[in-house]
Amino acid sequence: KINGDRLWDSLMDMAKIGPGVAGGNNRQTLTDADGEGRKLFKSWCDAAGLTMGVDEMGTMFARREGTDPEALPVYVGSHLDTQPTGGKYDGVLGVLGGLEVVRTMNDLGIRTKHPIVVTNWTNEEGTRFAPAMLASGVFAGMHDQDWAYARKDHDGKTFGEELERIGWKGTEKTGDRKIHAYYELHIEQGPILEDENIDIGVVTHGQGLKWLQVTLTGKEAHTGSTPMPKRRNASLGMARVIELVHEVAMDYQPDAVGAVGHIDVYPNSRNIIVGKAVFTIDIRSPDKDVLDEMDTRIRLGIETIAEALDIECEVEQVGHFDPVAFDPKLVDTVRAAADRAGYTHRDIVSGAGHDACWINRVAPAAMIFCPCVDGLSHNEAESISKEWAAAGTDVLFHAVLDTAEI
Amino acid sequence: KINGDRLWDSLMDMAKIGPGVAGGNNRQTLTDADGEGRKLFKSWCDAAGLTMGVDEMGTMFARREGTDPEALPVYVGSHLDTQPTGGKYDGVLGVLGGLEVVRTMNDLGIRTKHPIVVTNWTNEEGTRFAPAMLASGVFAGMHDQDWAYARKDHDGKTFGEELERIGWKGTEKTGDRKIHAYYELHIEQGPILEDENIDIGVVTHGQGLKWLQVTLTGKEAHTGSTPMPKRRNASLGMARVIELVHEVAMDYQPDAVGAVGHIDVYPNSRNIIVGKAVFTIDIRSPDKDVLDEMDTRIRLGIETIAEALDIECEVEQVGHFDPVAFDPKLVDTVRAAADRAGYTHRDIVSGAGHDACWINRVAPAAMIFCPCVDGLSHNEAESISKEWAAAGTDVLFHAVLDTAEI
Ligand SMILES: NC(=O)NCCC(=O)O
Ligand SMILES: NC(=O)NCCC(=O)O
Repeated sequence: KINGDRLWDSLMDMAKIGPGVAGGNNRQTLTDADGEGRKLFKSWCDAAGLTMGVDEMGTMFARREGTDPEALPVYVGSHLDTQPTGGKYDGVLGVLGGLEVVRTMNDLGIRTKHPIVVTNWTNEEGTRFAPAMLASGVFAGMHDQDWAYARKDHDGKTFGEELERIGWKGTEKTGDRKIHAYYELHIEQGPILEDENIDIGVVTHGQGLKWLQVTLTGKEAHTGSTPMPKRRNASLGMARVIELVHEVAMDYQPDAVGAVGHIDVYPNSRNIIVGKAVFTIDIRSPDKDVLDEMDTRIRLGIETIAEALDIECEVEQVGHFDPVAFDPKLVDTVRAAADRAGYTHRDIVSGAGHDACWINRVAPAAMIFCPCVDGLSHNEAESISKEWAAAGTDVLFHAVLDTAEI
Repeated sequence: KINGDRLWDSLMDMAKIGPGVAGGNNRQTLTDADGEGRKLFKSWCDAAGLTMGVDEMGTMFARREGTDPEALPVYVGSHLDTQPTGGKYDGVLGVLGGLEVVRTMNDLGIRTKHPIVVTNWTNEEGTRFAPAMLASGVFAGMHDQDWAYARKDHDGKTFGEELERIGWKGTEKTGDRKIHAYYELHIEQGPILEDENIDIGVVTHGQGLKWLQVTLTGKEAHTGSTPMPKRRNASLGMARVIELVHEVAMDYQPDAVGAVGHIDVYPNSRNIIVGKAVFTIDIRSPDKDVLDEMDTRIRLGIETIAEALDIECEVEQVGHFDPVAFDPKLVDTVRAAADRAGYTHRDIVSGAGHDACWINRVAPAAMIFCPCVDGLSHNEAESISKEWAAAGTDVLFHAVLDTAEI
């Protein structure tokens, strides 16, 4: 069994870096706080005798040697970056759970045939720089690295500049590593495990996603003196698109979700009709056909809405991944590990995207979920119990032991 | 006749201060640019032999003496502050038109019985600090001055702090001045005069306004892993309110308008369901009963919308003025002045709020409109011709001559 107290202490220590305003964290990717979090993680890795590698996307790889010089490493990890109003566990548990696995192996004097590499992927959240899972996406060959470097935050700063600024641009070519297997432990971020009182989610699939950034262009004009029929009101167009996204998602739920979380209107003055609205639609489904149908219906709907209001529309896809089926053999290993360690478990589909979804394209990958209170995530109030964290990490430990071979 | 070239040159000189990004102006109230604009205006007033007074709200009063020491002054003016993406004429024409009136009197050696006071009211636009027409409102006793000082901008800076910072907090008690008559020249900000090819709008009424700032509070949660029925989505609520405002305004138009121009959502992340949306509804009508009905319908509608989505709502009125009927005698004077100066004219209702609307409560007031291209205002592309500006100022000149008595 892993050491649940030590794991919890590390989680709490990491949560001190980049505190939020309501008990959670604001440790967005490539901020100073992200830099500090990385330093703390590195110090822990050093203390555990791991060797740190950093690739050109800033992803951190902390390696524990194996006994067979030929054997490819087993990777475990997730991400240390958070949402602007994020929780203490989303991502962090997977990284520090991985660290706890090697700490436990050190305690028990366990040597594995395959090396173990604890990984912190850069910019999983995608809030500051869209899309999400950016570094693992480049690692898996899904995005061009120069394109990733050129991604801009709200203030126009680029990913590449900010990575250099915080001092974590490594020299290792991204994606050069060969992976024997990848395990990622994560909080469920949904309500199923807690509702059913089950310890472990064996993640068989991940749903697909599209992020559509919409720009509606009307005409700035006076809210008081412009007659209703003369208006070209971009905020009204946006309102109709938000409703449309909801309707389309409702048509396919529970096999789909959809919402608009990011909105900027210009010039954002109480007495100016909105001349430009920029906002991002997030639609998801575990079924690729459903996702594509939603995409088509929404794009057509936007055009109809824009035409009726005499405004222009532009839709740019700023994020996308297809639904994922994780590696059946590794999924079996997780299931068996949960059984062996004596935890209740059920198969589950991930509602969120994860670095494992990209890594699954270049190597066998699987995921382990633990419950979180009320299914709440991407909220500073995100919460899990010490026992849930320990159970998930225990299953990770057993799965890794199995795959890395003693 | 006034000097149309000199007027135009002054308009163009003022437009150099606080330039916008698209040919217009961003000279928002109590910014450094506002301070610079005030300095330039003061230098012109000094050169014209006027004496400057500044009240505790920062309103500037440039006085030309009359021949009768007992006679109350005739006030002319408007505002030099602009929208964040404003035009070069909205407000500015009324102040510099007033200046041109006294410059012309100086040229012609005209002495009037009543003094003339050219006025620049602070914070007419209301974008940085709601509500609009703040200083004229305090002057007219509609708002408490300390309440006005405490108004906050988006960054939390107060009106009072910023007024001191730019160095334009005067010592004169606000509202102490007695006014014989107040004339305000302004661009129409609507399409009627241009459409009908008429030189001058004789403003008989101004429509009433309400600004309702709405806060909808749902629950921040993951956009991917939170099932549709579990969501408490504040952006969806906002979308429905925006549509409701439009529907209500359409029901009463052409006697009403309504829109939402200001929107902030939190935490504004693509993959977080909006937990809080703050936005401002702007509704207007020349008919007080219609305005009140719209208000009631919208407030009820917001409650219904919030209830259906299990979100909380709060509505705060952050701006309000009733419809205004300007002083019949001064309105007649404007009409006669337009006739005398040989311009075509028609009676018109102001769609926008103006400082004259508040001053009308404490003294006789009237307004003169000139056309603007395409009725466009609150847009950097706002445009008028030199001839339109000169015609409006000419009518102002004749009306002032009449009221101030030679
Ligand atoms: N796990 C997680 O929240 N990832 C962020 C990407 C997403 O929105 O699914
Ligand atoms: N004239 C003008 O645009 N005033 C600002 C107040 C309003 O929104 O009507």
